[in-house]
Formats: sequence, C-alpha cells, structure tokens
Amino acid sequence: MNVAVLGTGVVGQTLATKLVSLGHAVTMGSRQSGNEKAAAWVASAGDLASEGSFADAASSGALVVNATSGMASLDALVAAGAQNLAGKVLVDVANPLDFSQGMPPTLNPCNTDSLGERIQRAFPETRVVKSLNTVNCNVMVNPALVGGSHTMFMAGNDDTAKADVRALLESFGWPADDVMDLGDITAARGLEMYLPLWLRLWGATGTGHFNVKVVL
Amino acid sequence: MNVAVLGTGVVGQTLATKLVSLGHAVTMGSRQSGNEKAAAWVASAGDLASEGSFADAASSGALVVNATSGMASLDALVAAGAQNLAGKVLVDVANPLDFSQGMPPTLNPCNTDSLGERIQRAFPETRVVKSLNTVNCNVMVNPALVGGSHTMFMAGNDDTAKADVRALLESFGWPADDVMDLGDITAARGLEMYLPLWLRLWGATGTGHFNVKVVL
Repeated sequence: MNVAVLGTGVVGQTLATKLVSLGHAVTMGSRQSGNEKAAAWVASAGDLASEGSFADAASSGALVVNATSGMASLDALVAAGAQNLAGKVLVDVANPLDFSQGMPPTLNPCNTDSLGERIQRAFPETRVVKSLNTVNCNVMVNPALVGGSHTMFMAGNDDTAKADVRALLESFGWPADDVMDLGDITAARGLEMYLPLWLRLWGATGTGHFNVKVVL
Repeated sequence: MNVAVLGTGVVGQTLATKLVSLGHAVTMGSRQSGNEKAAAWVASAGDLASEGSFADAASSGALVVNATSGMASLDALVAAGAQNLAGKVLVDVANPLDFSQGMPPTLNPCNTDSLGERIQRAFPETRVVKSLNTVNCNVMVNPALVGGSHTMFMAGNDDTAKADVRALLESFGWPADDVMDLGDITAARGLEMYLPLWLRLWGATGTGHFNVKVVL
C-alpha cells in the first residue's frame, strides 16, 4: 500500500520506517519537498521510501498518517489539500501540545473540542481515526517493548476506516484483543486529554516505554 | 480515627460506609446539619456514624475526605472553615465536572489548573492529596471488583500526608504495589483530565467497574 506520513519528526520517522519494513511504499511529507530530515530518512530507508511536499505525500498515499506537531497539524493538512485527502483514511496520531508557555505543555484545543474532531470537521470527506497518540512512538510500532498486554485505543466516525486502522495496528504487533474502539471521533477529546496524565506517568516511571491496560 | 466525609452523594455515602466498617468514627458533612440524606445514612450506618454541617464534620475529623460535587467543592471547603482544615490531610476524590452544558460534561478548571491545585492554594495549611478520583466509588472501596491488579494514583505536596493516604488505600484493599505516587499536587491536572477518557471507557466497556493498570 502507498502510505503518506505527514511529519518529519521522531514520530513520523519511526512510523515511516516501520511501514517501509512492512513492505509499504511510504512518502514522507513536509512543508517543502527536499526537507533535510525527510531527505536523510529517504537516504537511509531504502527503495520504498520517498519524500515530498505535504500535497505530494497526500496525493500519493492510499492511507495518510498525521504525525505532524499537533499545533501545526491543521495547517499541514490544509497544505496537503482536501482533494488529496478526500475519501481516504487519515490516522491522526498527533497531540495538540502547546509548549509556548513552558512546561508542562497545555492542550489546544481541550475540554470542549479536540484536534481529532477539528480535523474531521475541516475535512469532512476524509475518514479520520484517532489512534496511537497515547503511547511513545517506539511503543506505537513495537508494543512488545511494554510487558504483557496493554491497550491501544481508537476513535472515529467510519467503521470501515477503523477496521483498516485495526489491521494496521495488528501489523505493528498490537494483538486484536488489545485494541479498543471508543466510538466516534468525539472520543479524541478523552484520548488527547490523557496526555497530562501520560506526562506524569512518564515522570513517575522514568521511561517512555509504558502504557495502560484497561482491566475489567 | 475520626474522619470527616464532606458530601452526601453516592460517593460520600460509599466512602463513609466503608470507613465505618473499618472502625472509624465518621461524621458526614453537608451544608446544614440535619440534611436528609446524611440523616438517613446515619440511621443505617451504626454507632460510629454521625452527621453535621461541613464545619461540624471538618472540626471533628482528624482526616477529611472531599466527596462533594467538584463544582461545589471550594464553597463547601470554605464553609468547612480553613481553621478546621489546617494541618489536616484532605483526600480530594472530587472531579470538577460541569454538566451545565449537557453531556458530555466538561471540566472546570481544566488544562492550566485543577480542582486539587485550587484547593491546595485556597487552604495552604491543609495537606491535600488527590486520589481515588479515577475510579467508580464502588471500586474505590473494593478494588477487587476489578480483576487482577490495577493502579490507583495519588498526588500531593506532603509526603507524610501521602503516606497516610497510602495506608488508608491499603485498608480499602489496594495492594501497596498498585498505588502510584505521581508527585506534587500539580499532577491533579492529569488525574482530573483523565475523566473524559474514563467516561468513554465506561461507555465502551458497559460497566463502571473497570480501571487502568500502568504496565512497563
């Protein structure tokens, strides 16, 4: 499958590398084609890797991953182009963390809205699925870094899109039983508002390689 | 120990009943002594149970539990009286859920502040510990309702207060290894902002008797 990974940071590179390792042709998208980090990734990632503008990537991808910085995601997606995103599954892994006031970051939006919902509203023809935003990027693509079973959430309005994302998560190593569907995209609010707790758990455990397991 | 439980709702009644069953003398506090729900609880709860105003309860308790509705907690604590709370451990189990705009509730405060922090700032001589707010009240006092091990968080500025709360949690049945200290009271922000996810997990699991376990 052709996959667009929007974003050249650690999250984007980690996801893009995993996708290539699974045999997908991945185009890493950034503001301008020729981006230094994207080009360096392409040079190291083999024949299935390419890079281009957000629009280049989105137009080539059958599936699009939003791994841009959460505060910049909507601008990035506008640059990607609604026509290039229409009808496609967009996996939104970003968190709208605002570091402009220092640490700890705040969320923007928060409480009455979420980035996942904003993306879905801005691109109504795109099938947005919020997922993977609740774990460190190494855990995203290698859940076995965390011991035992633990839970990956997803939320979105389109059931077939969630089935596609579930298959992608399983290809990353997430057991089917550990993937929990929280319903429509408004659940992105809870998934993003979990981040302040995630940050404290990171501090308390001393590692980013943790997750939570929902226990009944 | 004499314990004040502020609040007459399901959470307050559940905690008060558990505390009495453990041999504590519990005074349930409400806006006015003679509150109907508090009186009914006293009538059913035995000789260790009493009720009174918020100030009556706070003055009699060596430990104070804030189980009032989160949006009303600061007013309740002002009525309880700073002098009656000074030096004491206050376990804040409340969530500042605002249902005034319908479902889902929003949090007020949120993102840049929390109820736990507000209480600590308003009552600097009180040793506030945020805990128990991340589970249903039946699970608070009976963690075995949830299968296997799962995690209870606490946060506060005073280590001896947290040791007292840890002992209380253990008396409720929480294994020591399942209690996680997230640091100072600013972690209350993450603990309260978990509520929107908790509400979606409630919906997805179909039961309030669940929790999360932190897995490394």
